[in-house]
Amino acid sequence: MNILGIMTGTSLDGIDYALVNFQEVSSKPTFSLIATHFFEYTEALKNKIRGIISESLPISEFSQFNFYLSYLFNEKYQEFLDLYSINPIDIDCIATHGQTIWHNPNNTSFLDKQIPSTLQAGNISILAKLTGKPVVGDFRSGDIALGGQGAPLVTIFDYDYFHNNNEDRILLNIGGISNITYLPKNSNLSQILAFDCGPGNILIDAIASEYFSVAFDKNGAIAKNGNINHQLLDILLNDDFISKLPPKSTGREKYNKYSIEKVLSLIPYQIGKEDILRTFTEFTATAIAKNIIQFANPHSTIIASGGGRSNMFLMELLHNKLPQAKFNNIEDYGIPSDFKEAIAFAYLGHLRLNNMPGNVPFATGASHSTILGAIALP
Amino acid sequence: MNILGIMTGTSLDGIDYALVNFQEVSSKPTFSLIATHFFEYTEALKNKIRGIISESLPISEFSQFNFYLSYLFNEKYQEFLDLYSINPIDIDCIATHGQTIWHNPNNTSFLDKQIPSTLQAGNISILAKLTGKPVVGDFRSGDIALGGQGAPLVTIFDYDYFHNNNEDRILLNIGGISNITYLPKNSNLSQILAFDCGPGNILIDAIASEYFSVAFDKNGAIAKNGNINHQLLDILLNDDFISKLPPKSTGREKYNKYSIEKVLSLIPYQIGKEDILRTFTEFTATAIAKNIIQFANPHSTIIASGGGRSNMFLMELLHNKLPQAKFNNIEDYGIPSDFKEAIAFAYLGHLRLNNMPGNVPFATGASHSTILGAIALP
Repeated sequence: MNILGIMTGTSLDGIDYALVNFQEVSSKPTFSLIATHFFEYTEALKNKIRGIISESLPISEFSQFNFYLSYLFNEKYQEFLDLYSINPIDIDCIATHGQTIWHNPNNTSFLDKQIPSTLQAGNISILAKLTGKPVVGDFRSGDIALGGQGAPLVTIFDYDYFHNNNEDRILLNIGGISNITYLPKNSNLSQILAFDCGPGNILIDAIASEYFSVAFDKNGAIAKNGNINHQLLDILLNDDFISKLPPKSTGREKYNKYSIEKVLSLIPYQIGKEDILRTFTEFTATAIAKNIIQFANPHSTIIASGGGRSNMFLMELLHNKLPQAKFNNIEDYGIPSDFKEAIAFAYLGHLRLNNMPGNVPFATGASHSTILGAIALP
Repeated sequence: MNILGIMTGTSLDGIDYALVNFQEVSSKPTFSLIATHFFEYTEALKNKIRGIISESLPISEFSQFNFYLSYLFNEKYQEFLDLYSINPIDIDCIATHGQTIWHNPNNTSFLDKQIPSTLQAGNISILAKLTGKPVVGDFRSGDIALGGQGAPLVTIFDYDYFHNNNEDRILLNIGGISNITYLPKNSNLSQILAFDCGPGNILIDAIASEYFSVAFDKNGAIAKNGNINHQLLDILLNDDFISKLPPKSTGREKYNKYSIEKVLSLIPYQIGKEDILRTFTEFTATAIAKNIIQFANPHSTIIASGGGRSNMFLMELLHNKLPQAKFNNIEDYGIPSDFKEAIAFAYLGHLRLNNMPGNVPFATGASHSTILGAIALP
């Protein structure tokens, strides 16, 4: 069974494809990676998505974007097959996360009800007809319906493939948002923890773009030349999400360029832009370290993944803040860092196809484990 | 197999529930109606939906509405079971159309692509978890992916249950939009036609609301007292959609209170409000009759359904314009007029569960017949 996982994350950078072969129909099949590829979004598309997320627009814009994304996924799917000389007949199924446009798992007032909601763009029926393959999507809603946060969803993958009888492990993913899965040795599914820590690259990238006109702070070199502004750092660390008890999840709704502006407006003088980046990088590292120390175990083996890992300065700060931890790369376990989530969603697709639960209630806060995802046929 | 069809139409009035028993697993099973019920939307909800359709809003409004509707469907589902003393264990599946928010099956420019799109609110994963039942939804997208209009979708139901070897039949549904299915005697699926004619109640209701502060023109009594303004009627009949060759579909995007205002602004004097309603009623009847005469057969047996049927004056006009037709009520065939679409969507749910195609390419314009709908599990 070959399943193509398609991941489009909160960092809005593009589309990860990971084609995964699952060797048996079981709850923890041996798997191998066939091919992976990243297709970057055009600047026009990135701007369009940012607009849909943050501005008031006619609903036709979302309706069109929802379909557009499926047409784009199909176009890149054909390119992907060509690039790696894959015969379409060898693809059994596609599992797509969709581009998150809104995620608020907490009950919020709407007319007469208090309701949560999440919204991922990319229509699965369209993608199924265009590719000629069954498509699984809408993974988050089902968990939210059961009172969960609808995140994190990679937990089941982390547990099934990384939990170990001899050592405590922490999987740390630094995407737009940072999240961890804590796997105590010999644990079962009700003894693990998985939650968002706070910002990953999201604030660092926003500052790099706003103040330095670059997409990201390469290797963390800019931040490294700055100094911490402690007044700013104190305000940042006074963040209710960072110290909130798990399960918890967050997103671009909370951490964005407006939240940066808002915090900076509280400082009555101008801060040098290198110092701003340095301080937000410190905040990002501290948020991750604090969560590991408070809610997991700082003596664990930390297995890092995600785009934010290539910010060497951020990683250096993390090492310093967690001196007892052993840091490994997720590549040491055969998983390319950038494609871990796409692989995990291929696995969630596998679970849906076999009618097996995909959420971990202890991680998401859902009332019970449940089958995640909707299926459309070609 | 008992399937609950949930229909929420373009008239934005509320939710139709129809619980249908299908007696065999085949392409045309004998069915019987167990129970039907209409739950009216609150005024606040109607206004909210109108706002989402016609105004620029933050995407969070749609995200919340998308989930809200599933919570509401579940609430009314529990009421429905109570009202008719139905044991939840006797419900096998739910098929929901969803509330259409946007429907534009024609290729439209979006970034670098020309794409169609349709958007129905009401998340199926949420409804599946809340009700504990498998839920089928998103019926229209798959047909659109194959170049179809994504409408009409009741055609397969019309054909399977109404086509006759001895007489030509036309199923005429007058909802917000009017549509017909033309079933020549002895026809097969490639010989039938099904398409939207133009406005149903949508313009009449909008005028009743705007000028008379009533939800609809009861029995057509107000229009009956008015006179046709021929200058206005000529402009209205110069409508490109009415004479467009099928397959074709339309919606609230084209016919709405703004389109009424726009047409009225072309008349250089004030028209009496009764005359406005009379003229738009004439236009509605003429649009239907013209389509039947041009594209179907005015000698057919016409089987009428839909809320607009209770506008006696509109029906009287139709009789006059189609003197050779024999008019029947859909009740004569055992189908309650108001629940025909809900029943048809229960049937589409049945087809999806059995992996049978649901669209009629000759009606929608799709390149081929295909399985419609996505499934979420409890």
